[in-house]
Amino acid sequence: MDFSEIKGVILDMDGVLWRGDYPLLDLPDFFSRLKSLGLQVVLATNNSTRSVPQYLEKLNGFEVVLGPENIVTSSMAAASYLSQKYPSGAPVYVIGEIGLKDTLREWGFYYSEAEKDVVAVVAGLDRNLNYHILTRGVQLIYHGAEFIGTNPDRTFPSPSGLTPGTGALLAFIQAATGRDPIVMGKPEPYLFQLSLQRMGLPSSQVLVVGDRLDTDILGAQRIGCKSVLVLSGVTTPQEIAVPNPAQPHSIVPDFILNNVEELPGLISNADEI
Amino acid sequence: MDFSEIKGVILDMDGVLWRGDYPLLDLPDFFSRLKSLGLQVVLATNNSTRSVPQYLEKLNGFEVVLGPENIVTSSMAAASYLSQKYPSGAPVYVIGEIGLKDTLREWGFYYSEAEKDVVAVVAGLDRNLNYHILTRGVQLIYHGAEFIGTNPDRTFPSPSGLTPGTGALLAFIQAATGRDPIVMGKPEPYLFQLSLQRMGLPSSQVLVVGDRLDTDILGAQRIGCKSVLVLSGVTTPQEIAVPNPAQPHSIVPDFILNNVEELPGLISNADEI
Repeated sequence: MDFSEIKGVILDMDGVLWRGDYPLLDLPDFFSRLKSLGLQVVLATNNSTRSVPQYLEKLNGFEVVLGPENIVTSSMAAASYLSQKYPSGAPVYVIGEIGLKDTLREWGFYYSEAEKDVVAVVAGLDRNLNYHILTRGVQLIYHGAEFIGTNPDRTFPSPSGLTPGTGALLAFIQAATGRDPIVMGKPEPYLFQLSLQRMGLPSSQVLVVGDRLDTDILGAQRIGCKSVLVLSGVTTPQEIAVPNPAQPHSIVPDFILNNVEELPGLISNADEI
Repeated sequence: MDFSEIKGVILDMDGVLWRGDYPLLDLPDFFSRLKSLGLQVVLATNNSTRSVPQYLEKLNGFEVVLGPENIVTSSMAAASYLSQKYPSGAPVYVIGEIGLKDTLREWGFYYSEAEKDVVAVVAGLDRNLNYHILTRGVQLIYHGAEFIGTNPDRTFPSPSGLTPGTGALLAFIQAATGRDPIVMGKPEPYLFQLSLQRMGLPSSQVLVVGDRLDTDILGAQRIGCKSVLVLSGVTTPQEIAVPNPAQPHSIVPDFILNNVEELPGLISNADEI
């Protein structure tokens, strides 16, 4: 592959850059090498609960200084999607945490529960979820509001064990309304499309790096980006070692690395060949 | 059909006997006519939130005096199902309201959240539901507890509009665990099996009466009971007027009545022919 085409990278965070609070590589060195290769960088996450300042603070804790332009979340993809229909904002009903609520507000979307007003129900992980919150969302969708989900993840790891994710919450609303959500996060295209737009690059000039076949790599294939699977997260070498004849259309990354720290080498060495 | 075979009737309540707080017929007269025909009666409901005393009180408000032996709920079907595996009771994790919690306790099943103890997660409608309650259920199922749902209903009508039902809550847990629940209520067989057992009658001697094709009538077919659809509830005459060629196996009741008050006449007239 001709890596001289590559002008930008979209990086997943958890399982690629860190696991929880532990960095998986020398992060300051990694980002300075990407910079010296002249690559644009976007960190793209399905997580809708954290705000951009929270991510920048986390990166700062690892001695990495990036700007808000380097972060794209599924909350931002939802706000961007909505602003194409309602450029000057609109009333929405939000099920979610601060990352989603703040982002929608910044883009001009304000909270409402009124049937006559609400144009969309935007649902993301909400650990303060209760029956009343869900019921209002269901009733608003019943009355015609659009149903938007931030991400499809059905579980996520937490210190207390595996924990229900946005996908479980969406399944509740789906069952009660009979309606499918428009989902913003990977493997759907919206999050990556916003990342490309942010860099001002076509998909042919961007590499997607992640640790999950069914979100990162599948999502990359869908928007036409080359993909790099790293084995530092949830995917084991065994899962990708042998093509599965029962799944002829299984998801295959363009490159596989043990750790994302090999990425600058891959790109610069290939340039020299 | 030879109605002299019929020794018992299983009646749905809402949409058959009453709608909310309004009786759909002269209830005291109806039950005395069933009694004079020598028929055993069970009122069977998918609703897990109310206790048997609450139902008897509601019937009393309509001047109908029945005993606890005449009421079967999906909570009781869950307790009965569990007691076949654990005759002397066991620790269970309960998501539900008073009808479910009281019933399980009466059958010897006591509440626990401990992974090493809990044999089953029993989930029914809980209008005090929150994320923490759901998460604990998900984690216990992950650790091997059986997953039991009281009923499959995805919505139910309420004064504030259509409201999410047990089926929506089960979809949440299903999405997060990847496991399907064993469901007690109609159209699954457990609720009706318990009703037959209560009467001590085989299915060939029992008529099932209800207002829903997809729960009451389908459930009756599955256990081998003849069925009567009444048009006083959710099913409209239009829905059953014309066989649907797109659904060759659509659900067809044995008899159709406008109102359940015609039932004693149907049974006694047929006897006389």
